Amino acid sequence: MSDNTYPSVNDLTLEEEASLTSGGDAWHLQGVEAKGIPGYMITDGPHGLRKSLASNTGETDLNDSVPATCFPPAAGLSSSWNPELIRQVGEAMGEECIQEKVAVILGPGVNIKRNPLGGRCFEYWSEDPYLAGHEAVGIVAGVQSKGVGTSLKHFAANNQETDRLRVSANISQRALREIYFPAFEHIVKTAQPWTIMCSYNRINGVHSAQNRWLLTDVLRDEWGFEGIVMSDWGADHDRVASLNAGLNLEMPPTYTDDQIVYAARDGRIQPEQLDRMAQGMIDLVNKTRAAMSVEDYRFDVDAHNEIARRAAVESMVLLKNDDAILPVSRDAKIAVIGEFARTPRYQGGGSSHITPTKMTGFLDALAERGVPVDFAPGFTLDLEPTDPALEAEAVIAARDADVVLMFLGLPEAAESEGFDRDTLDIPAKQIELLKAVAAENKNVVVILSNGSVVSVAPWANNAKGILESWLLGQAGGAALADVIFGDVSPSGKLAQSVPMDINDDPSMINWPGEEGHVDYGEGVFVGYRYYDTYGKAVDYPFGYGLSYATFEIGGVKAVKTGANTARVSATVTNTSDVDAAETVQVYVAPGKADVARPKHELKAFRKVFLKAHESAEVSFDLDESAFAYWSEKFNDWHVEAGEYGIEVGMSSRDIAGVATVALDGDGKALPLTEWSTFGEWSADPVGSKVVADVREAGERGELPKLPDNDMMRMFLGSMPINSMSTLMGESGKAISSFMLDGYAKLVG
Amino acid sequence: MSDNTYPSVNDLTLEEEASLTSGGDAWHLQGVEAKGIPGYMITDGPHGLRKSLASNTGETDLNDSVPATCFPPAAGLSSSWNPELIRQVGEAMGEECIQEKVAVILGPGVNIKRNPLGGRCFEYWSEDPYLAGHEAVGIVAGVQSKGVGTSLKHFAANNQETDRLRVSANISQRALREIYFPAFEHIVKTAQPWTIMCSYNRINGVHSAQNRWLLTDVLRDEWGFEGIVMSDWGADHDRVASLNAGLNLEMPPTYTDDQIVYAARDGRIQPEQLDRMAQGMIDLVNKTRAAMSVEDYRFDVDAHNEIARRAAVESMVLLKNDDAILPVSRDAKIAVIGEFARTPRYQGGGSSHITPTKMTGFLDALAERGVPVDFAPGFTLDLEPTDPALEAEAVIAARDADVVLMFLGLPEAAESEGFDRDTLDIPAKQIELLKAVAAENKNVVVILSNGSVVSVAPWANNAKGILESWLLGQAGGAALADVIFGDVSPSGKLAQSVPMDINDDPSMINWPGEEGHVDYGEGVFVGYRYYDTYGKAVDYPFGYGLSYATFEIGGVKAVKTGANTARVSATVTNTSDVDAAETVQVYVAPGKADVARPKHELKAFRKVFLKAHESAEVSFDLDESAFAYWSEKFNDWHVEAGEYGIEVGMSSRDIAGVATVALDGDGKALPLTEWSTFGEWSADPVGSKVVADVREAGERGELPKLPDNDMMRMFLGSMPINSMSTLMGESGKAISSFMLDGYAKLVG
Repeated sequence: MSDNTYPSVNDLTLEEEASLTSGGDAWHLQGVEAKGIPGYMITDGPHGLRKSLASNTGETDLNDSVPATCFPPAAGLSSSWNPELIRQVGEAMGEECIQEKVAVILGPGVNIKRNPLGGRCFEYWSEDPYLAGHEAVGIVAGVQSKGVGTSLKHFAANNQETDRLRVSANISQRALREIYFPAFEHIVKTAQPWTIMCSYNRINGVHSAQNRWLLTDVLRDEWGFEGIVMSDWGADHDRVASLNAGLNLEMPPTYTDDQIVYAARDGRIQPEQLDRMAQGMIDLVNKTRAAMSVEDYRFDVDAHNEIARRAAVESMVLLKNDDAILPVSRDAKIAVIGEFARTPRYQGGGSSHITPTKMTGFLDALAERGVPVDFAPGFTLDLEPTDPALEAEAVIAARDADVVLMFLGLPEAAESEGFDRDTLDIPAKQIELLKAVAAENKNVVVILSNGSVVSVAPWANNAKGILESWLLGQAGGAALADVIFGDVSPSGKLAQSVPMDINDDPSMINWPGEEGHVDYGEGVFVGYRYYDTYGKAVDYPFGYGLSYATFEIGGVKAVKTGANTARVSATVTNTSDVDAAETVQVYVAPGKADVARPKHELKAFRKVFLKAHESAEVSFDLDESAFAYWSEKFNDWHVEAGEYGIEVGMSSRDIAGVATVALDGDGKALPLTEWSTFGEWSADPVGSKVVADVREAGERGELPKLPDNDMMRMFLGSMPINSMSTLMGESGKAISSFMLDGYAKLVG
Repeated sequence: MSDNTYPSVNDLTLEEEASLTSGGDAWHLQGVEAKGIPGYMITDGPHGLRKSLASNTGETDLNDSVPATCFPPAAGLSSSWNPELIRQVGEAMGEECIQEKVAVILGPGVNIKRNPLGGRCFEYWSEDPYLAGHEAVGIVAGVQSKGVGTSLKHFAANNQETDRLRVSANISQRALREIYFPAFEHIVKTAQPWTIMCSYNRINGVHSAQNRWLLTDVLRDEWGFEGIVMSDWGADHDRVASLNAGLNLEMPPTYTDDQIVYAARDGRIQPEQLDRMAQGMIDLVNKTRAAMSVEDYRFDVDAHNEIARRAAVESMVLLKNDDAILPVSRDAKIAVIGEFARTPRYQGGGSSHITPTKMTGFLDALAERGVPVDFAPGFTLDLEPTDPALEAEAVIAARDADVVLMFLGLPEAAESEGFDRDTLDIPAKQIELLKAVAAENKNVVVILSNGSVVSVAPWANNAKGILESWLLGQAGGAALADVIFGDVSPSGKLAQSVPMDINDDPSMINWPGEEGHVDYGEGVFVGYRYYDTYGKAVDYPFGYGLSYATFEIGGVKAVKTGANTARVSATVTNTSDVDAAETVQVYVAPGKADVARPKHELKAFRKVFLKAHESAEVSFDLDESAFAYWSEKFNDWHVEAGEYGIEVGMSSRDIAGVATVALDGDGKALPLTEWSTFGEWSADPVGSKVVADVREAGERGELPKLPDNDMMRMFLGSMPINSMSTLMGESGKAISSFMLDGYAKLVG
């Protein structure tokens, strides 16, 4: 990886090598000036650049950063199901980094939304790892196409804020491989992020920064990661252990490079490992040199704002639209209620909080369009109780309107990095206001602003329309006007289920953990994998979202393209007079399995824009991974032979057609042993021959007959054959010996 | 423990000692004839004696045993909530053992009904460990009062049949201590069973027979167990490892005593450990000598049948009784429908299957009483589909009856040791028949026969009455007549919740496990601990059961009797004209806790018989254990200071009154360290002084001030103070050093 024109570790002293493995300050690499290695800046994303004005000190202030385009956070962008759009956002962010001389922007964050109460859900992508990986990869590819690095984070299992610096996320290997790793794995394998940021938490007892299995065995040796791993800020508690595990860079620096020097001298760090870690840092600097050498670059502020606006349009999810209350006619008498219309909630709190280049609220957008409205804030965005005067004013404003646009949601204090929520509900005073308004005027559309899922059931019957707008970034107001007035049809689809009740979520039993650990007791059954498998009602399912158009999917077909691969195709038709986009979703439904598998899992999707009454063919190639589960028995992925359903639809609960393929399976099998049950012997290709021999030998009187009384029949199938001698006496011993000998002869 | 009149291990050769640690044959101890140690018989229970006629061979035949009184299996008896009655059953079984010269009867089985699909639920007691322990202890005390031993089983966590010989039950320490151990712990501490049988399964990877932590550290050293541990039949896979772990007796024998001799000679077994294990066997023989020396003893068959009948009466749970359809008038024109009325399901399948001394089905009991009925079997007890002729006959029989008694339930093939069920439903043909009958006659009472919970919701609206009769043992028919005709009011209470849908059970996500392990992901939230805590609807809650009488509970009061103990009292009144029994149930509801605790847990109960309009005072002493949870942090039980609700009621969802006590707590605390968060420092009595000093020193300018910007406030509470130096630079380092120094001075 090293470029010959720049130094390699062989040109450095031990001290210089050690120095590369920590930052120069809180937001810079530590270069080696004498050897021409610059100390580039790295700083927060992920939905825009957060370059602190005080960025060279250990102190951080969230509200003090240079202006940058604020794109919709992942909560919104993930609802777009549009990787190409996401890539354009990435490209724009890369350009802003060039202007600001930032070598690496810290993002995207692709942790799984295990529980909607998680404090950072607003900056993560999905409850589904396939969707998270196939969307967020656009950020990585887009930024890096500009010669600027990304930092895929937080590796791994940083799915809650509670006790995040210490908690051990205790997770089965299968859940790690099927749920918590795949977004990382996909992005590493297809886009090679230049850096990865390890998580604060421990996984099965080991801090991520010190987890050699995680950072070296899996990330580098299995997945082929070629970049560097840095610590989350303060996640490194033992530099020697971390460096040995595969951590290249401690951030922020603790100014303890001498510890690395001592450890290299006394053998606690092998020279080769220090070389690898330091060389990774040189390689990173070399990759970014070209972009960091561009002088006086200025990104196109308006063009980026326009990308932010398009991204915001595609981020909205239309949940409910009774009586086609949306779009709103330009001639309608409109009441706009809710402080959020004036003071938009457009991003989340914490390290991702950025300063936008410009800001358009919904009221601003209406003013730009010259649309007259009657506005009443209705409530304040603080924790104060209902203000009767504000409520009364809002009710009056609503009374004579043709349509009421009510902007409800979570105030900034309700969700942020640093803490988890304890309820899905929006503030009670907003619901109270909604009910008061709905009592006066039935034509209410609720526009929600929130970073992570909120409960809808408690108040939904008071609104004819519900538009979930998440956090829309700086151009959200204009985008809302585009959608509300029908310039563009909404096309967002839920990246996370909206449950009826937070207690329906299977992770609630183990949320947020206790006494230093959180046990992921629900295993792989996260989000729709639980709700759909166990037949539990939800308010709105994964993948759901309405449009101003209507669509039909037909002609679902699947053909086998290999032993364990298939191509599925279908036709999607816009059956309306409105131009709009639909997202075709492909779920694989395993027929039977040796393990408990989700009813179905998303394995492909495509967003298709169709003019009125237009049709399109879509086809998807499903590789072996689409059918595999992680087997702890094989310590590997495993595709069982058998029939698989391939479902094509418009949400996880709106499946238009199912095609079936019969796969050969990957043929993996463990050898039979004395610990294999009689049933396993009978089911095995070789074992079944041995069992037939046992029966024949029994008939010939050369071996005791297999028992046929009730108790023995009851036990036999599930009995390891080493128990036969115990439970069936001498005859059992004779039979099991015969079986082991016979098997040994047959397998050679 | 050794009786001086009999040999001790000091009198035995190494070979003789070794021989004591395995059986003589499948159902006998291996005596040492030369030293006067007899090889007594031990054989199956647990709801009556199963002494096989072929009991000295390795073969077993379930249907070939000497007659013994068949008492209701635990599924029924557990619904009695009557420990005194259960003790009488135990005494009777002890007498039958004396007659049959059985030194140890194998039972009771007190594993927790983690999931109602578990194949042995019919022979286990409850989903609640307090109830299981406080009922089953009656069997142990009763049997042993006769000089015969019991074998408390299956220690531990044998909660499923699937892969039971190999599966690793992966369970948190907290769930083991709070859910899966307490029934064992209570019985060991209060009744000292002479033997315990270890389970087949592994716990957290270790086979129970080889689990020294389980068999020695916990069972003997913590709980003070004085008896011997035997293997379940075939559960011992490594005699040397097992003996070292604390297993006294391998059953059935593998005739490998020489392995023990070799291992003792070459040091793989310490002589002291072999002595302990063998001496335990001698002690056991000595305890049983007196009873085994009684000659020509004959138990009172009729008296035992009468006990079985009373036990059966108290085992029934009246789930529904609309329009007071029960009791049935003697003058009523009665139709009896369902093969179970003629061919009762009265016990479960597997090792507990016994041959009754006599057998009374419901039709037999009606004949004895001279009650004329119109009987139609309606369906067969096999797996065949509906027989239209049988169905038509039943509908005709029902047409003109005043009341229809429909006997539905699970046929024998539906549940047994050896496999788990895959549905809660009763056979579809029975439901079809019920609907056909109910269309003709609305006055239907369903009498259920089933060993473990069946779903009721799918058909309940077709019946005015539902009487859950479980499995009632040999006198079930007579007992049913007693209850149905109102000689006695039903008084049973559910020992297990009846869910709406098996998928509501939180263990379903991890049931029955895969690839050799089952992860108890629901932790302590088993049964009503889940349903009540997470507000999930059930068909019938834990502790529920109707009566022909009505009761009121009033005057609930609690007084503190010590730092962490309380006495609760209440008045229970029979407000009806019918004599009957009610069970007063006491649940403790922790106010707040550092861990996720169930909403409430059963901690006391008492069954009170009250004549019409009679009242009684009941009071209960709650010791510290009633309020404690198992803390993995302290590796010990822990009572937090604070308020606790003490609920008194007639089911887990019928709480008549709540009293509150404020406990002092046990004062346990861990010292603060650099890994304690700033929030933990602030909450600690000593730490808070140090934090105050930090603030004062900051005011005086002697120490950097604590940060007050957004990000730092967000992080600080949950930040281990060792992260302060990383995330807050030099000032953080100064503050955390000041704190650690200050604390060291204060704690000395």
